[in-house]
Amino acid sequence: FPSKLPNVGTTIFTVMSALATEHNAVNLGQGFPDFECAPELVDAVTQAMKAGHNQYPPMPGVPALREAVARKIEALHGKAYNPNTEITITAGATQAIITAILAVVHPGDEVIVLDPCYDSYAPNIDLAGGKAVRVPLTPGTFRPDFAKISAAITPRTRAIIINSPHNPSATIWTAEEMRQLEALLAPTDILLISDEVYEHMVFDGAEHQSAARFAGLAARAFIVSSFGKTFHVTGWKVGTVAAPAALTAEFRKVHQFNVFTVNTPMQHGLAAYLQDPTPYLQLPAFYQAKRDLFRQGLEGSRLKLLPSTGSYFQCVDISAVSDLNESDFCQWLTREVGVAAIPLSAFYGDSFDQRVVRFCFAKKDETLRAALERLRKL
Amino acid sequence: FPSKLPNVGTTIFTVMSALATEHNAVNLGQGFPDFECAPELVDAVTQAMKAGHNQYPPMPGVPALREAVARKIEALHGKAYNPNTEITITAGATQAIITAILAVVHPGDEVIVLDPCYDSYAPNIDLAGGKAVRVPLTPGTFRPDFAKISAAITPRTRAIIINSPHNPSATIWTAEEMRQLEALLAPTDILLISDEVYEHMVFDGAEHQSAARFAGLAARAFIVSSFGKTFHVTGWKVGTVAAPAALTAEFRKVHQFNVFTVNTPMQHGLAAYLQDPTPYLQLPAFYQAKRDLFRQGLEGSRLKLLPSTGSYFQCVDISAVSDLNESDFCQWLTREVGVAAIPLSAFYGDSFDQRVVRFCFAKKDETLRAALERLRKL
Ligand SMILES: CSCCC(=O)C(=O)O
Ligand SMILES: CSCCC(=O)C(=O)O
Repeated sequence: FPSKLPNVGTTIFTVMSALATEHNAVNLGQGFPDFECAPELVDAVTQAMKAGHNQYPPMPGVPALREAVARKIEALHGKAYNPNTEITITAGATQAIITAILAVVHPGDEVIVLDPCYDSYAPNIDLAGGKAVRVPLTPGTFRPDFAKISAAITPRTRAIIINSPHNPSATIWTAEEMRQLEALLAPTDILLISDEVYEHMVFDGAEHQSAARFAGLAARAFIVSSFGKTFHVTGWKVGTVAAPAALTAEFRKVHQFNVFTVNTPMQHGLAAYLQDPTPYLQLPAFYQAKRDLFRQGLEGSRLKLLPSTGSYFQCVDISAVSDLNESDFCQWLTREVGVAAIPLSAFYGDSFDQRVVRFCFAKKDETLRAALERLRKL
Repeated sequence: FPSKLPNVGTTIFTVMSALATEHNAVNLGQGFPDFECAPELVDAVTQAMKAGHNQYPPMPGVPALREAVARKIEALHGKAYNPNTEITITAGATQAIITAILAVVHPGDEVIVLDPCYDSYAPNIDLAGGKAVRVPLTPGTFRPDFAKISAAITPRTRAIIINSPHNPSATIWTAEEMRQLEALLAPTDILLISDEVYEHMVFDGAEHQSAARFAGLAARAFIVSSFGKTFHVTGWKVGTVAAPAALTAEFRKVHQFNVFTVNTPMQHGLAAYLQDPTPYLQLPAFYQAKRDLFRQGLEGSRLKLLPSTGSYFQCVDISAVSDLNESDFCQWLTREVGVAAIPLSAFYGDSFDQRVVRFCFAKKDETLRAALERLRKL
């Protein structure tokens, strides 16, 4: 039988994590913490299981969790979502994104994605029968290029996917850029999928500019977030989507026939834990310290640091160190130097090689130090 | 924007559970247990969380769980699957089924489903751009009608979905019927999706005839199961797919871009718990006792019992009790009698009304007794 995704292999994150394990490398590739989540969070899930919260939750999610999410968005961004009709709990952000795409993209529709982007977007669009229209972010700076985005819009454009803080480039969108997008979309009925999974990882006093803050964007947006990223539990697979009621209604039609519902005890545990905002309010400082540790360790090395203003990633230019392309460099680095990284080319439709690779600094300080010791030899 | 699923509302299970809650009815509608899972299973998950198993697991699932699943299938059905290349852990059976469909159904392909069937199949096929071809099971007996199935096959037929033990009819396929399907498919390259989520609920000494037992079926099959059903944890959302390596490879391409991975602590907990086969080997007797309690309670009533040989459902013919159609009857029963049930028409493409409704007996004996007391007044 013919493949539905003939050009797709195993996702780069899985490939590099497997290679890292095989070569006993320090794994700064796939984005996940190597430290523990809060013990209170584990206890809250245990309590939920012991209290008997082990059967199907309501299809859109446990009400207390949806309410806590709505309160959080309102507190941070001043936008009120109705938890009954506008917030849905998903099996992680990836499932949120494919569900939004399957819910709104019709065969033949175009969806604009900004390269480099997360590797699930384009296959998700393919699976819906749509076409990913890849518009490059400005090479070098990764800023959105509104002239190029505008030129890519056609009558078939159904949606655009944006992502800030940005994986892999570690840049964030400014309020001015969000307003430019708002103005560009205003005369259209193009929908927005705003992937904000790194929302709490913004540095140097910058603020995360959620699509929720811009009325013209919020009215057309699926805003996606991830408890896995925020609370150091990437393996729990719980995310959220906030969207106007009409979009949420279509989203849930697909959601109920994709995963139907999401892990009940985790939802109850997260609902309890989310009552206190301290853990996520501390995240910027927590990750900024790790970013600074990692950057300082590379200063004076021949790996050239790019800015990292958000997410838990640090990109470096490898051109002074190696003639290999990014992908071969990451293989070599994992095997020979013992540090795994992700090539940026994996995030481009055409495997565009900028001589840049991505490191994840969501690691214990000792892990970062072990990696730095190896990297400084380059 | 136009709906992708214009004919789809909220799934019947959610609708009836909400109505049951609203009217304080005994909920024998949606299929889930109202009793607790084994405390050892909760402890195993807690141990996994405390041991730090909270980050992304390997994309296809935790190896120990895949190995345990392969061992179980081999022990029960004599078919060896390679856990590395042929077993994948999913976020429940529903996600397994949509993922298999998205992985193999191309736009314009036809997929045969046997009415009545689970309400996610047809929308799943729609979302893949395919066409659900609905072939009725024999009215009254719910046996597969091979002449009708055969007549429905065209050059565009990509797959057929079967389900035994069968939801909603509580029938099971015989070995002879599985062999007939095997013979029918032998000259074709039609794929099989075999939904076996109630595999351990077979009564009166009957045996579950997994597609794994029939070489000609196993070679073309995605075999789907559910830990939620088997271990009384429907809210944990962990299922499995067993399929030949070539099918699994395509399945995983989609899986990695749908949910990417499945809850890590639950997978570790289930892997530990699955080492001992006793819990699932006891399920037939456990549920048969509940079935018998429920059936005996209705004997002599005007609700006519249909056979229940598998699953945790009991269908009854309502014609002697009411002139309402099934759907209105279930509404009335929930509101006025205080017992929720599911109309069989919800499982048919054309809402075919057989005057039959489905009760779920996966409930505490006291719950079943409370429902029976109300139902006997009919
Ligand atoms: C879902 S896989 C890896 C996590 C991630 O978002 C990344 O590494 O980019
Ligand atoms: C996934 S919703 C309900 C469970 C079920 O399988 C059913 O009631 O038929």
